[in-house]
Amino acid sequence: MVISLAKRDLITIEDLSNQEIEAVFALADEMAEGLREQSNVCRGMIMASLFFEPSTRTRMSFEAAMNRLGGRVISVMEMRNTSLAKGESIADMARVVGSYADIIVIRHPWEGAARVVADYADVPVINAGDGGHEHPSQTLLDLYTIKKERKTLEGLKIALWGDLKYGRTVHSLAYALARFGATMHFRPSAGFEMPEHVIRKLTAEYAGRLERYNGPKEEKEKGLIPLDAIYVTPSGPHQLANIPAVGIQIELEKGVDALYVTRLQKERFEPSAEGLKKGYPVVDKKLFKEKGFKETIVMHPLPRVGELAYEMDSDPRSMYFKQAAGGVPIRMALLSLLLGCKTVDIPESKVPSFAKKMEHPVYKRETGVKCQNEKCVSVQETEREYIKHEFQIVSNEPLTLRCVYCEHEIHPPYIASSKWHQGLVENKRYYKADSFMLGRIKPENLIIFNSEEKAQHQGFKLGKRVKPVGNAK
Amino acid sequence: MVISLAKRDLITIEDLSNQEIEAVFALADEMAEGLREQSNVCRGMIMASLFFEPSTRTRMSFEAAMNRLGGRVISVMEMRNTSLAKGESIADMARVVGSYADIIVIRHPWEGAARVVADYADVPVINAGDGGHEHPSQTLLDLYTIKKERKTLEGLKIALWGDLKYGRTVHSLAYALARFGATMHFRPSAGFEMPEHVIRKLTAEYAGRLERYNGPKEEKEKGLIPLDAIYVTPSGPHQLANIPAVGIQIELEKGVDALYVTRLQKERFEPSAEGLKKGYPVVDKKLFKEKGFKETIVMHPLPRVGELAYEMDSDPRSMYFKQAAGGVPIRMALLSLLLGCKTVDIPESKVPSFAKKMEHPVYKRETGVKCQNEKCVSVQETEREYIKHEFQIVSNEPLTLRCVYCEHEIHPPYIASSKWHQGLVENKRYYKADSFMLGRIKPENLIIFNSEEKAQHQGFKLGKRVKPVGNAK
Amino acid sequence: MVISLAKRDLITIEDLSNQEIEAVFALADEMAEGLREQSNVCRGMIMASLFFEPSTRTRMSFEAAMNRLGGRVISVMEMRNTSLAKGESIADMARVVGSYADIIVIRHPWEGAARVVADYADVPVINAGDGGHEHPSQTLLDLYTIKKERKTLEGLKIALWGDLKYGRTVHSLAYALARFGATMHFRPSAGFEMPEHVIRKLTAEYAGRLERYNGPKEEKEKGLIPLDAIYVTPSGPHQLANIPAVGIQIELEKGVDALYVTRLQKERFEPSAEGLKKGYPVVDKKLFKEKGFKETIVMHPLPRVGELAYEMDSDPRSMYFKQAAGGVPIRMALLSLLLGCKTVDIPESKVPSFAKKMEHPVYKRETGVKCQNEKCVSVQETEREYIKHEFQIVSNEPLTLRCVYCEHEIHPPYIASSKWHQGLVENKRYYKADSFMLGRIKPENLIIFNSEEKAQHQGFKLGKRVKPVGNAK
Repeated sequence: MVISLAKRDLITIEDLSNQEIEAVFALADEMAEGLREQSNVCRGMIMASLFFEPSTRTRMSFEAAMNRLGGRVISVMEMRNTSLAKGESIADMARVVGSYADIIVIRHPWEGAARVVADYADVPVINAGDGGHEHPSQTLLDLYTIKKERKTLEGLKIALWGDLKYGRTVHSLAYALARFGATMHFRPSAGFEMPEHVIRKLTAEYAGRLERYNGPKEEKEKGLIPLDAIYVTPSGPHQLANIPAVGIQIELEKGVDALYVTRLQKERFEPSAEGLKKGYPVVDKKLFKEKGFKETIVMHPLPRVGELAYEMDSDPRSMYFKQAAGGVPIRMALLSLLLGCKTVDIPESKVPSFAKKMEHPVYKRETGVKCQNEKCVSVQETEREYIKHEFQIVSNEPLTLRCVYCEHEIHPPYIASSKWHQGLVENKRYYKADSFMLGRIKPENLIIFNSEEKAQHQGFKLGKRVKPVGNAK
Repeated sequence: MVISLAKRDLITIEDLSNQEIEAVFALADEMAEGLREQSNVCRGMIMASLFFEPSTRTRMSFEAAMNRLGGRVISVMEMRNTSLAKGESIADMARVVGSYADIIVIRHPWEGAARVVADYADVPVINAGDGGHEHPSQTLLDLYTIKKERKTLEGLKIALWGDLKYGRTVHSLAYALARFGATMHFRPSAGFEMPEHVIRKLTAEYAGRLERYNGPKEEKEKGLIPLDAIYVTPSGPHQLANIPAVGIQIELEKGVDALYVTRLQKERFEPSAEGLKKGYPVVDKKLFKEKGFKETIVMHPLPRVGELAYEMDSDPRSMYFKQAAGGVPIRMALLSLLLGCKTVDIPESKVPSFAKKMEHPVYKRETGVKCQNEKCVSVQETEREYIKHEFQIVSNEPLTLRCVYCEHEIHPPYIASSKWHQGLVENKRYYKADSFMLGRIKPENLIIFNSEEKAQHQGFKLGKRVKPVGNAK
Repeated sequence: MVISLAKRDLITIEDLSNQEIEAVFALADEMAEGLREQSNVCRGMIMASLFFEPSTRTRMSFEAAMNRLGGRVISVMEMRNTSLAKGESIADMARVVGSYADIIVIRHPWEGAARVVADYADVPVINAGDGGHEHPSQTLLDLYTIKKERKTLEGLKIALWGDLKYGRTVHSLAYALARFGATMHFRPSAGFEMPEHVIRKLTAEYAGRLERYNGPKEEKEKGLIPLDAIYVTPSGPHQLANIPAVGIQIELEKGVDALYVTRLQKERFEPSAEGLKKGYPVVDKKLFKEKGFKETIVMHPLPRVGELAYEMDSDPRSMYFKQAAGGVPIRMALLSLLLGCKTVDIPESKVPSFAKKMEHPVYKRETGVKCQNEKCVSVQETEREYIKHEFQIVSNEPLTLRCVYCEHEIHPPYIASSKWHQGLVENKRYYKADSFMLGRIKPENLIIFNSEEKAQHQGFKLGKRVKPVGNAK
């Protein structure tokens, strides 16, 4: 089958199906072969490289990729010297730059910024990192490295270590791995656990199961950080659930296919040679003598700042420089596909995706419900004038709205219905969101409030006290 | 006739004749057609893109233009990291960069800086903004948009709104419009009126007439800002002068061809939703329901920061994104013309320019007369060592010198003549500049002083008291 | 003979033999001819232009050169916005960028940084300035200018003026000139004398001789700065040594082939019109009326900030803009040679190099001996984790170690031998480095300590008191 991605955007890794990901990889292989020869694949095309936040690696590899393809690059390297610093909105910038270039690659500190650029620019947009939200081309090259080394993406076991809370790369990677049916071991440093909304999405939308687990203290002695949870794919071993402690022990000894280590967030935590060893994993030769790591590849998105010893560099299991080098062919493949300069013919896939296709109802009434994430693009001074708040209703237990820009979740406390008894204004009532009334209102009629004041301001009165859901007392 | 601009500089919009402007537009049309195909027009050429002040839009569109032409770009994106920051003069920088590149595009905070670059570099130079002075390629694309929408540049009516004082784009645009015989309505925000020297130039050198006008208070109610003056082209309606109030009322109701809105200078004035509406125009749907705007196109140099509502974006009269998109073809045309890679064959123009060709005498004696504009390149510490002060004598009533670098005007108080009676030093006399003596001294003999001290220091004595000109008492 | 430099690095000027330098010049001549035509010599190649310190001239000329060769450029323009600012090591950055690009050009404030990049990147590396250490492509273009004007590099007389202490360009130039058998006149401003380690290297490794000289006070009157020393090449006039004062006087009157002026270090010394004339040379027309300068060319690496008058610009002896313009062809030649896109066929050289090939023994035991230069790359927090300290033992009188990264020298105070009498630990002794014991220890057995504590900590005891070398009392 022929895969074309012409005119598409890449904002989150979920914008690509499993098959499209395989297509990118097939093309990346081809690109990697003739890497150092000038190609004319994207001749005449211009990539706008808009980096409003520090980056060397990502920016340079995108720019190298476009140049290798015969295209041209125009760059912005920081926020300070730009029209955005003069108070211009992202939407205006996107429209204008979209009229200069054929494709836009953007990194921005605000979460959801790349989505806004894609909404307003007339050309394809690649998210090269929007705050703590997503960085899908990094995820692609992580997966690409795993596939190169393991020959498949299906049914793998991957350990994720270190900062699982703030590292944007690790969340996208977890979603992508889940789609390919991976089992994952989470080993966060204390205070850096995988966030609840990521866990919820993994279990609700990718059909897997999370097994919590408190590793024995002795693990720390070995330089390991305690295992926190295992995400088991639907196709995974069922016995874990039955006899957890034993099953997990067996599971661990079998080892993992890849260990993905993430950078210590220096800005959040003062590192020291000793403190590091205690609070954060240090992957070194001693650790890698453990049986479980015998055939484990070591990955790291780089830069590293102490959690991965230099002595590992010469170890054949270390893949992080190879992983970084994959950045150019992966981005060549992406750029040429989105620009419509290439299509890929790949065999029909036999393996299904483990992602459930969820069609969440959308909430976009202007009732004062806003994203609570202060880094969300939708709440910024220059953007809120034109951006309409918009949410997916992802759960009713409790009521959970997911911002379409930054994907953060909120739990608003009050609800109402737009269907009034006999259309009488006097009958406008609002209820607590955790009452059984929520289940009685159709999503298209749902009105949501952040506070009683907002509800009353719009003419609603408090409805009869109703019992909270799941509280039968 | 064949127009060639090879090896020319573009420092102010006055460097191009009306016909040359039409030639640029004809070529821009051609460029716009094949925009997204790689051209080889400037293959082998290098453009130095020197931006010593914040810019995204202008820099990126110049760089996109050069790349689309098949040329290459080397960039400087800010002052801080450059040899200028080490104390190098602009002249030295210009000579060196001129030996690396084939054309220089420069933005610099000092007024007149681009002129100095052109004086010292061996290659063509384009001024991409020198402080508050000029930004001629912006003016070209403003005119280009008007022409595209109105099919002609001749005899149009244009309203200029907002900041008419500091906006460099608006001054150049006014001169250019005047040359094409436009009538202009000035509607400045309070405190942002068109400066006197611009008015003087418009009336003295472009042959038009300025009608002052105090609009009724009710205009404010409608969200309009009061009309301040109308510039009437020599070909324009004469009745305005006879019965101003009535004439103007009729004039206004007929509407304008284009409304050019400029950015509120946030740095000078604290905006707020309310304050903005009061002190500054906000162009929105409500305003555009007024009869006078029925067929008016809306233009804005961008970035906007509140004076132009987002709701206007979908209005077919809004041209500002189209205007921005014109940046690439206009700059492609300019670059290929100045580099000598293209000429343009256009029909002989039938419409004369409304500009009077003025040959002002030049004053460049070293008598301590300096430009008073503290942003002028000629008075900067690193530049004054080699730049000779030089002025055009643009008027005798009062004596007015215009700096050849920044075009600011000064009125020096004392004069003398280099022709001494019998060559006797004892006869060296200086006079007040507002005396009738000024008229008796030939420009080539004129000596000018800033102060009596300077005059006396050079051996002059105060001449006999003479009556000031125009003061017959 | 055919000269190929494919896959080589250029970290210091000593990385090129005299013949290789001549080959670069021959190719630069060829490049200069077709300068403004697009070449395809490096088509398909990418240069990473990593400037972690301010630069316009060097960066732009490298980027112009690569573009003229048909190659492409990816740039970093400052430290702040990079992964290095996130705490990444230079080694990691080098490996990753080396997988994106085909050649790396780096400027970095740490001395020796370019050496580290070359050690870790898989592609050729050009040092474009590492702190106060080296800037070999500048040296090449200085030599190139001299050769163009004097038709040869052999047996010239060159005066070096101004800041001979901090100017990195002047040290490399002095070494290179020495290799070609030049005689040099050092005329430093007070406090800016040529450093001892440069003098030592010149006399020890280039076989020449230094004549110290205190010029007469009257020189100052003429605007000259006093002659401090003359470096006489082995082929130079011997009479100088015999009757110095007279010989030097004659020598001076004969004039020099080139005067190389360097920039006043504004950051170290407050300039003023008067102060400048006194403390620092100002090369101007008056000075250049002196007989000795009649045929002297004036060179300057630029930027100038007062030490070279603008009035000299029109003097036919002024070569500094020509020198700067040489930057592009020289760098075109370098890039195409190191990338292996070009080789050069030059005639066998008849003139020997005056450099003695010194094979210094290397010291790299981990005994706590570190470089004392706080700007050395080897002592930086992010680098010291993986860089092993390494030194050349360049002298025994006194014991002198030269850091292989920054080339600074240290004189450690204590020594020992790894050959123990009968292998008994009790016999481990350490001695003062200035004792005759030093001569008795073979370089391969030498152990060096920075302090008695370090020695004792490793189980050594103080050896018997032994007389210092050269102190026979």
